[in-house]
Parts: sequence; C-alpha cells; structure tokens
Amino acid sequence: MPESRVHFEPLCRFITAAMERLGLPPADAAVVGALMAQAELQGSDGHGVIRLLPYARRIRAGGINLHPEIKVVQERPAMAVLDGDNGMGHLVMQRAAEMAVEKARTCGIGWVGARFSNHAGPASLYARMPMAHDMIGLYFAVGNANHLPPWGGLDMLLSTNPIAVAVPAGAEPPVVLDMATTVAAYGKVKAKAQRGEAMPIGWMIDRLGQPLTDPKRAEEGFLMPIGGYKGYGLSLIVGLLAGTLNGAAMGRDVIDFNHDDVTTTNTGQAVMAIDLSAFGDVADFKARVDRLVRDLRASERMPGVERIWLPGQQSHERRAANERDGIPLPAALLGQLQDFARETGLAPLETIATMKETT
Amino acid sequence: MPESRVHFEPLCRFITAAMERLGLPPADAAVVGALMAQAELQGSDGHGVIRLLPYARRIRAGGINLHPEIKVVQERPAMAVLDGDNGMGHLVMQRAAEMAVEKARTCGIGWVGARFSNHAGPASLYARMPMAHDMIGLYFAVGNANHLPPWGGLDMLLSTNPIAVAVPAGAEPPVVLDMATTVAAYGKVKAKAQRGEAMPIGWMIDRLGQPLTDPKRAEEGFLMPIGGYKGYGLSLIVGLLAGTLNGAAMGRDVIDFNHDDVTTTNTGQAVMAIDLSAFGDVADFKARVDRLVRDLRASERMPGVERIWLPGQQSHERRAANERDGIPLPAALLGQLQDFARETGLAPLETIATMKETT
Repeated sequence: MPESRVHFEPLCRFITAAMERLGLPPADAAVVGALMAQAELQGSDGHGVIRLLPYARRIRAGGINLHPEIKVVQERPAMAVLDGDNGMGHLVMQRAAEMAVEKARTCGIGWVGARFSNHAGPASLYARMPMAHDMIGLYFAVGNANHLPPWGGLDMLLSTNPIAVAVPAGAEPPVVLDMATTVAAYGKVKAKAQRGEAMPIGWMIDRLGQPLTDPKRAEEGFLMPIGGYKGYGLSLIVGLLAGTLNGAAMGRDVIDFNHDDVTTTNTGQAVMAIDLSAFGDVADFKARVDRLVRDLRASERMPGVERIWLPGQQSHERRAANERDGIPLPAALLGQLQDFARETGLAPLETIATMKETT
Repeated sequence: MPESRVHFEPLCRFITAAMERLGLPPADAAVVGALMAQAELQGSDGHGVIRLLPYARRIRAGGINLHPEIKVVQERPAMAVLDGDNGMGHLVMQRAAEMAVEKARTCGIGWVGARFSNHAGPASLYARMPMAHDMIGLYFAVGNANHLPPWGGLDMLLSTNPIAVAVPAGAEPPVVLDMATTVAAYGKVKAKAQRGEAMPIGWMIDRLGQPLTDPKRAEEGFLMPIGGYKGYGLSLIVGLLAGTLNGAAMGRDVIDFNHDDVTTTNTGQAVMAIDLSAFGDVADFKARVDRLVRDLRASERMPGVERIWLPGQQSHERRAANERDGIPLPAALLGQLQDFARETGLAPLETIATMKETT
C-alpha cells in the first residue's frame, strides 16, 4: 500500500476548514485545526486527525457547544477554574494554559482547572505550552471512557487518566513525559486487534484476574494499571485533581464518548505552570537538565539495547522528521478524510506526491 | 518471639530525648520525635524509629547540621525555595508544608521546595499536613540512594523518587497515595533477604534484563520502575521537580546515604498545597469524594478478593489500631533501641506489658 504523507500546513488548513464547515467560528476552528495538526506532527496519531470524524459525529449530534462562553468561575491569584460551557476541549485547554502561564508569571506557579470541557487531544500538547515562557508545564485529565476497575474489582469506574509534564532543557530536547496510568492505552489494544496480533501479558486481565492476550476479547477484561495497585491509586488521584476538584465528571459520572455522542461529557482537566525564573537562574537550570539528560543517555546499556531514550525524545525526533518529510497517514484514514471532504464540499486534503520507487 | 508494643506518647518522648542527646535543640528534637513517631503510628515502619540509629550514626559523623539556619532563598506569592542548611529533613519539610499552606490560603495554591534538606521520613507525612486546613497536599522527593538505571541502561542514576498526594474526604478516610516510582521499595527487598524468601518476578532485573528473584543477589541488579519505561519517566520527572528545580542533588550527584554518613546529601523535596475553598464549596467537594470512595469500595470483586482498598485506607486503619493497641516493634529493633538508650544514658523505651496468652 503506497504511503501517503501530508505537510503540516495543508493538514492544519484542512482541519480548520472542516471545523468551520461543522459550525465552529473561524477563530475557534483555527485553534482546533492547529492543535490537532500539532498532535499529528509530534506523532500523537491516536489523538490527531483520526479524531476528526468522531468529533464531527458528536458535533452533528449536538453533543458539543459550537459557541461556548468559556468563563472563569473560581479565581485566586495563582489559580482559576474555567467552565468550558461544553465547547471543544482544545479551546478550553488552550485558554487554561494561557491563564496558568499568566498566573505563574506573577505568583511563581499557576494552576487552572476546567469543568464542562471535552476531549482536547494528547496531554503533552498542553504540558508543552508553558515551555515557550521558560516554564515547566503539567497537565492532568480525566479520560473520556472508563477502562479499569479499582484494584481487585470488576466495575469499570476509572479511566486511563493521563499525566503529562514538560521540562525545558538547554541544548537538549525538553524532557516531556506523557503517560496514561495504564500499561497500555486502549488505542493500542484496538491496533493489535486490527493487525490480528496477541497482546503481551500485562496489558489486560480478564474478570478472573488472569492475563488476557487476545485483543478480540478485550471487552471481557480491563486495562492493567501501571505497577498494579499503584497505578490504580495514580489514576484515582489524577481523576480527583482533574475531575472532582473542578466539579467535573469522575467515576460513575464519566460518559463513554465512544458510544455516546449526545450527553455532555463534563470533562475535567488541569494545567499547571511553574516559572523557572522564580526558582533561580533559568540558564543554570537548563544547563543542569542538559547535564542530567546527557548522563542518562550515556549510561552503559543492557545487551541488545541500541539507545537510551529520554521521555519526549522520540516525539521530538518524529516532529523533526514529519516537518521535513511530511506526516504519514494510513491509507484508510486518508480515504475517510477525503470522503468527508467530498460529502461536505471541502477541498480534498492535499497530500505529498508519492515518491517513485527507486530500483 | 513475644510481641513488643509501644504507645505513641512514650515512643515520641523516647525519640525526642534521643535527638536531644544527639545534640538537637529541644524544640527541633520534639518536631523530629513527633514526626518519626507519627510515621510508626501510620505503619510506615520503614521510615519510622528504624531510622533512629542511622540518623544517630550520621549525626555523630558530622553529616547533619544540628543548628541549621533554614531560610527562604527564593520567593514569589505562591512559591518559595528553602535552603535547609543540611538540617534534619523533618524540620525542613515541616517548615515547607507550613509555608505551602500559608501561600495556598492567599493564592489558592502554594508550592515550597527545598535544597540542602535531608531524609524526612515517609512522603505521606508531609502530603497529609495541608489536610488539616481543608487542603489537598502533594509531596515529591529525591530518594537518598540511586537504585535504578534509565530504561535499557545499567548505570544507576535514578532513585525510587516517591510521590504522595493526600485528598480530604468527608465521612470517609482521606485518599492518601504514597508510592515509590519503583514496583518495590528497596526496604522490601532487604526484608525478603532477611526472611530467606524469593522476590516475585517484576521487582528486580539483572544486568542482562532478566528477572532477578534471589534477594541475596540484589546488588547484581536493579529495581524495576512501575510500568517499565513509564516509571522510569516518572522517577526522572519527580527528580527534576524535587531536585533539579530546587538546586538539589539529582542523578550522579545523589549520595548513597546508606554507605556515606559524612557527605552533605543536598536532598531535594517539595510540598504543594491546594486550597479546596478556592475551587468551590468545601463540604460539597468532600461529599463528592465520599461518593466516589463508596462507589469504588462497593465495586463487584474478582473471585478471591475480600475487599477493595482505597489508597491510604490501610494506613488509616493501622493508625487506629496502633493508637488503641500500641505500635508493634520487632524484637531486634527494640533491642537495638534499648542498647542505644543504655549507651547514651537515656531512660529505656517504655513498652506495653506483654499480654498473658489466653488459653
């Protein structure tokens, strides 16, 4: 199957146009388009343009407010809570990150949570935003479908609730952790099923607590939290900080947005910014991060290990490659996007001419 | 072997007296005594009075400043950095928690980090402190010995860097997560070795990446981070936030305080407080936590699982039992403490009369 690639700018324009066609005001469509294309650029393909059709379905079903009045409902000098008014999560979280940065500039740290938000793409997008201001960024979110029970239980009351933290470095790429609190994200299970492959032991367990490795039986089991009961605790804590604290959905109130396009999700998320200059000399901090990164990377390796990776380094390299070569899109996804364009009267997504095979 | 138990108050007095004898000013000795006894009370026995003799060894070797000038070296409205001046970590962290609470009262959130601190006991002690003020507490620390390499590596550059988060509930016990970023803490490995038991697969790996289950061979391997590369990333991020950000030791600069009583550890830690009243109605928040806790606890259970636990619930029950029945101390540890008392001219630790066996 020939590989299809798209450049960032045309992808961004395409998503923006699609969002406008779906009814978002142009400025809002541009924000969502840019953030979804950035997700693709950094290789977060599970949270990028693959979400366009599910978003469209939800928007058409009336499950998203196209003209939200995003407003501050609680505020202190270093924190705020936003009510996203059921708008697109990207709009709510971009606003939250901007406010967290402003607050950190005066207070040293800033924390902005949200309720009545929606799915906003990869966690690292928002954790990365404060870095442009020489700040560390943190992001917490309640996932939009419950995939794990409490440890030892069978009722799926918890989601993959991700954490992302982005720490600026100097000459080195930033350290960017973006992790679900489960061993595998649910998207990886779906991918294994599509390819007809077995899952490794440790990804899922069945209702008897036994390893589940057949991805076609995924509905019979649960995702495993990282570190067993520790990941269960971490998922719960992230949900309390990003959901309960903001008056957003958590536990049994979480809507499975894969199977429900209408009910307001009341998604909860939070962004924190930590201003490096409040803690001391910024250049000195970055130099210490560089030294630490280099020490880790230069570690003696286990047999068979070619390279020590730092968190965020793979997506850093992917971003550079995708900027240069274009963003790879699976043919099936590209087909769906072009069908969507045709149906809605949009110009088709402009792909890069397929290279001739060299012989 | 007969079980020995001590009540909280006599234990607190004993540790306080010991700390005074070692040269701490009375007020500081009382703080350390109370916090170490609280650690025992909540069942954090790896971080309680078992540390008295190692602390004494370090103090006598000159590795701790008995008269530290703990001072604020960086400050903004919502944050501060303390220089602990190489004092006992308990003093530095209690001060950090107090300041974080004060800052959260005005700014909504407060973050206080420290450098030149020392080991301060269990992470949850400090995460719990803001709860008395209707605040969520978070605590991050750089461990005092490196036990894991970067993922795929062999050089031990990272510690078990713990995270603790304490969330107030209403009628239910608070949700308190206190976890190392490794599957097992190193103390658990030592305990397995003492009992001559094998470790479960997943606790440690050897230098070839193979499971290591013989705890006597622990020096040949490494602790496993939770979730593999995810726990590696989490340990690194906690180290950056608690260590590097504060100008404290991280990576190759971390001193192994098990094998070095003299070198200043420059331990880094941070406490964060989140004021619930800044986010909305406190009683309403607590009621929502109660409901979530009850939903989780009432989950249908896997076969063989007797009870669903919430993070912090076991230590909550342990605290109640220990307050009622006294704190159990292993005979060997009690013997060491009584030897220490004799050598230093202290009154012996007052134990509870051993119950007569009922027939």
